[in-house]
Amino acid sequence: MDMNHPSIGRYDFCVEPFSEDYAGRLSWGTLGNHLLRCSSLHAGTHGFGYDQMQAVRHAWVLSRLVIEMERMPRTGEKYGIRTWVNRVYRQFTDRQYAIVGEGGAVCGYGSSVWALIDVASRQPADLESLPGGGFAAALLPDTAVPVKGAGRIRLREAAPAFTRTARYTDLDINGHVNSIRYIEMVLDLFPTSVLDAQDVRRVEMAYCSESHCGDVLTLFHEEQAPGTHAVEIRKADGETAVKALVRLAPR
Amino acid sequence: MDMNHPSIGRYDFCVEPFSEDYAGRLSWGTLGNHLLRCSSLHAGTHGFGYDQMQAVRHAWVLSRLVIEMERMPRTGEKYGIRTWVNRVYRQFTDRQYAIVGEGGAVCGYGSSVWALIDVASRQPADLESLPGGGFAAALLPDTAVPVKGAGRIRLREAAPAFTRTARYTDLDINGHVNSIRYIEMVLDLFPTSVLDAQDVRRVEMAYCSESHCGDVLTLFHEEQAPGTHAVEIRKADGETAVKALVRLAPR
Repeated sequence: MDMNHPSIGRYDFCVEPFSEDYAGRLSWGTLGNHLLRCSSLHAGTHGFGYDQMQAVRHAWVLSRLVIEMERMPRTGEKYGIRTWVNRVYRQFTDRQYAIVGEGGAVCGYGSSVWALIDVASRQPADLESLPGGGFAAALLPDTAVPVKGAGRIRLREAAPAFTRTARYTDLDINGHVNSIRYIEMVLDLFPTSVLDAQDVRRVEMAYCSESHCGDVLTLFHEEQAPGTHAVEIRKADGETAVKALVRLAPR
Repeated sequence: MDMNHPSIGRYDFCVEPFSEDYAGRLSWGTLGNHLLRCSSLHAGTHGFGYDQMQAVRHAWVLSRLVIEMERMPRTGEKYGIRTWVNRVYRQFTDRQYAIVGEGGAVCGYGSSVWALIDVASRQPADLESLPGGGFAAALLPDTAVPVKGAGRIRLREAAPAFTRTARYTDLDINGHVNSIRYIEMVLDLFPTSVLDAQDVRRVEMAYCSESHCGDVLTLFHEEQAPGTHAVEIRKADGETAVKALVRLAPR
């Protein structure tokens, strides 16, 4: 597809010092934060950003996020995020991402599912019946990225791996544990002895319920096939905050 | 002092979505990472950056960091970091920071102490006898920022507050828990019920020894005067990784 289409947001970055992991690859936390930031900037440009929605007492809620990387950009490398919206259906909208490395070759793709909720009632809005046609003008139908979307994540015999209390620096501006911190918690299941030999190729997140400051979060883990890890983060009362699926591949 | 002096590095930012804390203030983690990044960029510009030091098998190690904020920039606000080196003595060099808000008014200051170590021997280099005069040309003597520098932090009757295992996403490119993650751990001592009414005004960090993936870190805490909190992060063998002093002030 034409990455210069005016409905595609184009944002350029560089793997700066202190944004890499221990192996000199762009960290998943930095990449995740930049994906959310680009979503926000792109939505704002097209009239359905955080501020515009806040003015009508609505807020975007991330429901699913998939990031699949063929390779991570490395220290000092320039890279770009391209993002667009390809689908609106009932209460949901799908946003796609391409991550391009220096020279423009694709390093990976992402996709996400968002709901727009009424801040007062916490109920989702029907996106197809928004006044003014909603953001139909920015839609690029039939342009899903060529990676599998979010699926159903089911754990059978998960064992508790570790517990972590949600604290101040885990919170986003809504006072909930931020979406990207959960990705970090999930990847923290893997010691460097594993990551020395394997790359994280795909991370799939299903955001189920919000956690707050002080919540005790337990990570349950099940390796469902070699390199395929299902994870569930549960609060003390047993409610699921997040489900995740991580795929590792030998380097 | 003249903030346009050619020896002062000037870097401009904006409080982007997903870089704030729960109250819509620039997060300490983001600010800390940007301070380190500006240090690195400024050092690189003047010939003593990460790459240049790596080529001669040396590396910069952060020893002390003080950040004192009169106010934190808020969501959407433009802000800038100004940084320069004001002192070289034996194995150490002092770097100063001014954080300026939109319009140029100062929001806060920082100062830091760095050592340059030989990567093979882990011994510090004598910075005053570097070949080529070292970075004397970029020095701005007598230009310390108007906040108290790093002092000695001593805990008397500290109680263990919480334990946290160092994991993958805590690590920097050297495989050690990154300097800014420790700031986050220290601030995580404070629940939102405290931070609703008080601002973090000053954070002072003394980096004592490195932690690695898997290290079990325990935070010890002592309120030494109203709003003045001393913290020590110890590894399982009792060795101190970090000492910190945090000052809160009613909003």
